[in-house]
Amino acid sequence: MSLLRLASGCAACLLTVTSLAAEPLGEAALAEARILRERALADDTAYELTRSLTTEVGPRLAGSPGDARAVAWSVEKLKALGFSNVRAEPVTVPRWIRGEARAEITAPWPQTLAVAALGGSIATPAEGIEAEVVPVTTLDELKAQPRERIAGRIVFFTARMGRSRDGSGYGTTVPPRGSGAAEAAKLGAVAMVMRPAGTSTSRTPHTGAQRYADGMPPIPAFALSNPDADMLEQQLASGQPVRLKLSNTSRWDGEAQSANVIGEIPGRSHKDEVIVLGAHLDSWDLGTGAHDDATGVGIITAAAKLIAESKPRPKRTIRVVFYANEEFGLSGAKAYAANYQDAIDQHVLGLESDLGAFRPYGLTARVAPDKLPLVRTIQSVLEPLGVAYLGTEASGGADVGQLRPLGMPVMDLKTDAEPYFDLHHTANDTFDKVDPLLVRQNVAAFAVIAYLAAEAEGGFGRLPVASKTAP
Amino acid sequence: MSLLRLASGCAACLLTVTSLAAEPLGEAALAEARILRERALADDTAYELTRSLTTEVGPRLAGSPGDARAVAWSVEKLKALGFSNVRAEPVTVPRWIRGEARAEITAPWPQTLAVAALGGSIATPAEGIEAEVVPVTTLDELKAQPRERIAGRIVFFTARMGRSRDGSGYGTTVPPRGSGAAEAAKLGAVAMVMRPAGTSTSRTPHTGAQRYADGMPPIPAFALSNPDADMLEQQLASGQPVRLKLSNTSRWDGEAQSANVIGEIPGRSHKDEVIVLGAHLDSWDLGTGAHDDATGVGIITAAAKLIAESKPRPKRTIRVVFYANEEFGLSGAKAYAANYQDAIDQHVLGLESDLGAFRPYGLTARVAPDKLPLVRTIQSVLEPLGVAYLGTEASGGADVGQLRPLGMPVMDLKTDAEPYFDLHHTANDTFDKVDPLLVRQNVAAFAVIAYLAAEAEGGFGRLPVASKTAP
Repeated sequence: MSLLRLASGCAACLLTVTSLAAEPLGEAALAEARILRERALADDTAYELTRSLTTEVGPRLAGSPGDARAVAWSVEKLKALGFSNVRAEPVTVPRWIRGEARAEITAPWPQTLAVAALGGSIATPAEGIEAEVVPVTTLDELKAQPRERIAGRIVFFTARMGRSRDGSGYGTTVPPRGSGAAEAAKLGAVAMVMRPAGTSTSRTPHTGAQRYADGMPPIPAFALSNPDADMLEQQLASGQPVRLKLSNTSRWDGEAQSANVIGEIPGRSHKDEVIVLGAHLDSWDLGTGAHDDATGVGIITAAAKLIAESKPRPKRTIRVVFYANEEFGLSGAKAYAANYQDAIDQHVLGLESDLGAFRPYGLTARVAPDKLPLVRTIQSVLEPLGVAYLGTEASGGADVGQLRPLGMPVMDLKTDAEPYFDLHHTANDTFDKVDPLLVRQNVAAFAVIAYLAAEAEGGFGRLPVASKTAP
Repeated sequence: MSLLRLASGCAACLLTVTSLAAEPLGEAALAEARILRERALADDTAYELTRSLTTEVGPRLAGSPGDARAVAWSVEKLKALGFSNVRAEPVTVPRWIRGEARAEITAPWPQTLAVAALGGSIATPAEGIEAEVVPVTTLDELKAQPRERIAGRIVFFTARMGRSRDGSGYGTTVPPRGSGAAEAAKLGAVAMVMRPAGTSTSRTPHTGAQRYADGMPPIPAFALSNPDADMLEQQLASGQPVRLKLSNTSRWDGEAQSANVIGEIPGRSHKDEVIVLGAHLDSWDLGTGAHDDATGVGIITAAAKLIAESKPRPKRTIRVVFYANEEFGLSGAKAYAANYQDAIDQHVLGLESDLGAFRPYGLTARVAPDKLPLVRTIQSVLEPLGVAYLGTEASGGADVGQLRPLGMPVMDLKTDAEPYFDLHHTANDTFDKVDPLLVRQNVAAFAVIAYLAAEAEGGFGRLPVASKTAP
C-alpha cells in the first residue's frame, strides 16, 4: 500500500467516525444491511412460500374455504419459521359466491364470449338477460347520456388500459369497475359489461370489486377479456344493433370469520417499536393469487426471517401482517387500524408488498421532511438493485396505507407494474408466472429497508394526523 | 447517360434476351412478380377477410352451424372478389359436440383446473370419474408400465413442448394427444389428461383430435393448460397420492355435410393447368380460428386476387381451395384428391398456408430435380422478405400435401412457428393476435410464388407416384 493510499484511507476512516456520531445509521448497520441484501439474493424462502400457498391453498377469496385454509397455513408457517407472537386476529368479512357467468352475442353474428362476474354482482334471472349493447368510454360519458339511450340496454364500457411501468393506466380504467353498474342502473340499464381493467391479451376475464349505489336497484355486472371486448367492438363497428345475452348465478351469503395473521421478529432493545411489513392473504378466485398477493406474503416473511438471522438483530421489532380481505373492502386493514390505533405512535414505519414480484426500480418515502436524508441513506444500499430515490409520493399501499392518516410514515418500493397487470385478477395469476430471481430482488429490498428502519436512531418522525379514529 | 453506361446497358439487354430464350421465366415475368410483391405489401384484403371470417362466422368446427356459415361466407366472398368457377363441393364430415368438461384435484389439496376435452373424446358418466393420477412422459414410457400401475387410474402425460422457430416441438409432444387415451385404455386406465401440445403460459387449454383404438373400450381424454399441468405436477411433487375428478359431456352426433369451397383465377393461355393454393376453412371451437386458419384463407385469397389484377395475368390458372375439416381427419383433402385424381397431371404445383400469419423465413420445394434452378429464381424475388432457400424437404402441408403422393410438386413457405404454438387450438386464437403487416408479408410471398409458378415455362416436373388411388 502506498503512503498516498494509506493517507487517503485514514481520511476516509476519520470521515466515517465523524459520520457515525452524526448519522442515524452507523457504518456497521449499513455493512450488515449489505450482507443482508446479498443473503436475500441467494435465498428462496419467499419463492417456496409462494409455491406452498398457491399449491396447497390456492384461491382464497374472503370468506371461502380457501380463505380459512390460508389463515391456518399462515399461522403454521410463521411458527415454523420461528416468528414470535404469532396470532390470528379475527376479522369479519363479507362472503360472495361467484357461481357461473356466461355471455354470448346473439346478433348480428352469434359468438360466445369469455366473461366473469365482477365481485359483488347480483345474479341474472335464471333465463338470463338479453338486450342491445350501448358502448360508452367512461363514467362521465355514461352520465352525459340521455336516459332513453341507456334504459333497457346493456352498457359496455370500452376504455382500454394502457401499459406502463407505474401501472397508472389502472387508475384511469378501474372506475367503471367500481361504480359502472351503479351509474348505469341510474339510467335504467339492465346490465353492465366492461373491457377489463387489465392489459392481458389472453381470454381470461378480469374480476374485481364493484359496489352498487344505495337506493338504486342493482344490475348484474361483468368483465370480459380484452379479446372478447375486441369482438364486441368489431361487431358494433358493423353499424348493426348488437345484442348480448348474459347469465350469472352469483350471490351474497352473509358474513364469515377470517383473520389478520401477524408474526414478529422482536427487536433487541426497542421491542415495542415496530416496523410493519404488510401483504394481503386473500385473493381473487379465478387464479391462485400468485402475484396478488402470495408473493407479497412470501417477500415480507422472507425479509423478516432473514433479518432475524442478522447479527445483531435490529433494535426495533419487525412485524409482518397478512391482511384479511384486501380485495373486497380492506376488512383486515380497517380492523388492524381500529385494533392498534392506541399504539399507533409505536408504528415507526410501514411498507407493503402488493404489486407482485417484478423488477424493483424505485423508492418513495412519506416521512417527516427532516428524515429524508435517512431515506437517501437507505436507498444507497438499494442502488445495486436498480432502486432509485423517486421522491415523497408514497402511499403505503392499500392495507398498510390505512395507518398513514393516523400519522405513521410509509415507504413504497416501486416495482414494474407492466407485467403485473397482464395477470392481476385473472385466471393467469398462477405460480408458473413467478420468477424466483425477481422474488429474491424484492426480498432483498424489503429486508434492507426494514432492517435499516428498525435500526435507525430516531426513526422517521410522524405524518400529519388526518383522523384519530379508525377509518 | 455516358457512353460507358450505355454500353453496359446494352450488354445487359443482350444478356436478358439470351436468358429469355434459355430460362423458364423471363425478365418481364420477374419484374411483374416484383411489382406484385410490392402491391401485396400495401394490401389489406387478407387482413380484412380474416377479420370478417372471425367476426361474422367465428368458430367453425366441422359439422357445426359455424361450419355451414363458413361455407356460405366463402362462396359469397369469392364471388364478390371476382373469382371464376366458384363452387362448394360437398364433403361429408364427422360431427362431434364438445359439451362441457371440468377437472378438479380432490387430494391432497383441492384445486379447480382449466381443462378441455380432446376432440373425439367420449363423455364421462354423469357423476364424473375420480381416480389417482399416474404421470408418464411419453407413449413409450406408458407402454413400458406394468398394468397394475395404470389400471383404474388416470394417466397424465407430462411432456412439455419446446419453443422453436420451426415448430418441431409439436411433433414430439403431439403423439399422446392422438393415441394416448387409446394406449392408456389398453392398460386399464379410466381416463387420460395431458399437458398441452402447445407453448402457451395462459390458462387456455389446448384441444385437438384424438382417436381410440379399435376393439378397446374408449376412455375420456382431456388436455390441461400448461399452468394447470404445472399445478398437477406441483401436487405430485409432494409425494402424496394426487386424485383428480373429471367430468365431460362430449358426444358424437353422426355425420354432416360440409364442403370444399373452390374459386379460380383463370390462366390467360393454359387454363387447364392449375396452381393450387390451399388453406382450411374449419377451425377448432375454443377460439375463432384466427391463425388456424382464417389467415390462411385470407392469404391465399388475397394472393390470387392480386394476381388477377397483374398485367398480364399468368398463363396458368390459380385455384384456391378452402378445405373442409382439416382438423378432424382431413375430410376435405381426401375428397379433393378423390375428385381430382384423374386431373392430377394438370396440377402443376401446390402450396398451403396453415401456420398462421407470422414472419416468413424460408422456402422449401419438392419438385423434379432439374427444376430446382427455377425454384431458386422464384426465391430470388422473395429475398427482400427474408425468405431463404432451405432445400427440398417440402410437404405441401396437411391438405395440399395429400396430392403429393399422386405426383404433384409442392412448395412450403416456412414461417415462424414459435408464436403460432402459443395460440394454436386454444381460446386465444383470436383476431386481435393477427398483425396486418405480417399478413401482408405472407400474401406477398404466396402471390410471388403462385404468379411465377403459373407463368414458368415447363412447370416443375412430376414427383414419384406413391399411389394412384386416393388416400
